[in-house]
Amino acid sequence: MALGRVSLVGAGPGDPELWTVRALRRVEEADLVLYDALVDAESLRRQTYAQCFCVGKRAGRASVKQETINRLMIRSARQGKRVVRLKGGDPFVFGRGAEEMLVLVRAGIAVEVVPGVTTAVAAPEAAGIPVTHRNMASGFLVLTGQTGEGLNDALTAVRPGGITVVVMMGLGTRDAIAHAFITHGWSPQTRAAIICGASTREEWIWAGTLAELGTPEPPDGVAGVLVIGEVVSIGEAMAAAKAGPAVADEVRYGRS
Amino acid sequence: MALGRVSLVGAGPGDPELWTVRALRRVEEADLVLYDALVDAESLRRQTYAQCFCVGKRAGRASVKQETINRLMIRSARQGKRVVRLKGGDPFVFGRGAEEMLVLVRAGIAVEVVPGVTTAVAAPEAAGIPVTHRNMASGFLVLTGQTGEGLNDALTAVRPGGITVVVMMGLGTRDAIAHAFITHGWSPQTRAAIICGASTREEWIWAGTLAELGTPEPPDGVAGVLVIGEVVSIGEAMAAAKAGPAVADEVRYGRS
Repeated sequence: MALGRVSLVGAGPGDPELWTVRALRRVEEADLVLYDALVDAESLRRQTYAQCFCVGKRAGRASVKQETINRLMIRSARQGKRVVRLKGGDPFVFGRGAEEMLVLVRAGIAVEVVPGVTTAVAAPEAAGIPVTHRNMASGFLVLTGQTGEGLNDALTAVRPGGITVVVMMGLGTRDAIAHAFITHGWSPQTRAAIICGASTREEWIWAGTLAELGTPEPPDGVAGVLVIGEVVSIGEAMAAAKAGPAVADEVRYGRS
Repeated sequence: MALGRVSLVGAGPGDPELWTVRALRRVEEADLVLYDALVDAESLRRQTYAQCFCVGKRAGRASVKQETINRLMIRSARQGKRVVRLKGGDPFVFGRGAEEMLVLVRAGIAVEVVPGVTTAVAAPEAAGIPVTHRNMASGFLVLTGQTGEGLNDALTAVRPGGITVVVMMGLGTRDAIAHAFITHGWSPQTRAAIICGASTREEWIWAGTLAELGTPEPPDGVAGVLVIGEVVSIGEAMAAAKAGPAVADEVRYGRS
């Protein structure tokens, strides 16, 4: 009997054209695909004859328990199946990918990790915002939108300005997050942006200041990231410098 | 006359299978490809009939000036050519991609950005190291391997522990970097790793402590990243937990 395997695969920010070539190949060859809610199910099913199950959760909706996912992956691999565990963004950026990898390796299952385009970088990019820029941001910090002690800890750890902060899964708590930044010495005038549904048809972009971060109303049910730092002004400068509407439409990664 | 355009495209960490589907398509359709030294020229030429020029630099080797690259992109796009500017990793992570984007937009050239798998995440991943992990690293910081004031500034900005630090382009100065971390209060026993040539045939991985970071001798002429933080122990735990050599070979993203 051929031994199965599990591929932990990053699906990137949303658009299936931003899958890697290897991700596409693994999905095409798979017997079973367990995918997160962030993955576009319609595109997925067009690419494969595999059984596809959504096991991911989204705010407020029930999800399959991690233990059940683990058991299903192990059992299927032992049956000789090629299992793809498809995750939004990159499997090792807040994706619990490493936890799944350790469980699988300890069960003696062959496992590989296929990196993906991380939403932490690609979402700002969709708005023309580079996470690093000469004389503006010499690095970037990626956090989740936890509030309370976790966020306070993180903000105590970074000095205001100089680096870009990308907050993932912080849409619902953006008001509290902005408040925490300001409390920790960040200027209320620091540029800030919200990018939802990057690279998808639902893409939605807002730019303003940290003080205004709680004001805009992003669309419901679409995942988003917050970007805090002066690099947001690059996206704004790009929009201002654009030659005309025809160019403006091009100045985004398109969906051709 | 059809108007040309420039695509700023991320080529990922090295392996052409880690290009995105869109990157592959843009390269296939291109008339002109200007690529960085980090991109695998042989694979590139197999994918396209376009004229391909290496314009990137590597430590110690001369490179084409940024102004010349800009002029060439603008002139070629105005001639109606589809130009691909292919960069290692992601174009907006230390790639000067945003600078090129602004120059092009200001010249009235249609430009798009195609995100790539960033080496900042994929290189640790190749060693089984997640940049985030529950109860171990609640976020990650990406810096370049500058030394002197720049590094001191960055290290003043982060509190030791709690988050993962990835240092790009810091191979040559790793001794000074380790020293700077320790001076800024990081324990010399903090886990640290070096990953060179991630996802390529030259892949080379070392793991140890911050205090030992200057000791190993990575191969010459291969780009590498440093990872500093307790998440390095996940890569080590994975190796320890592996069931046998057959599995061990799989526990890396392969080159199938």
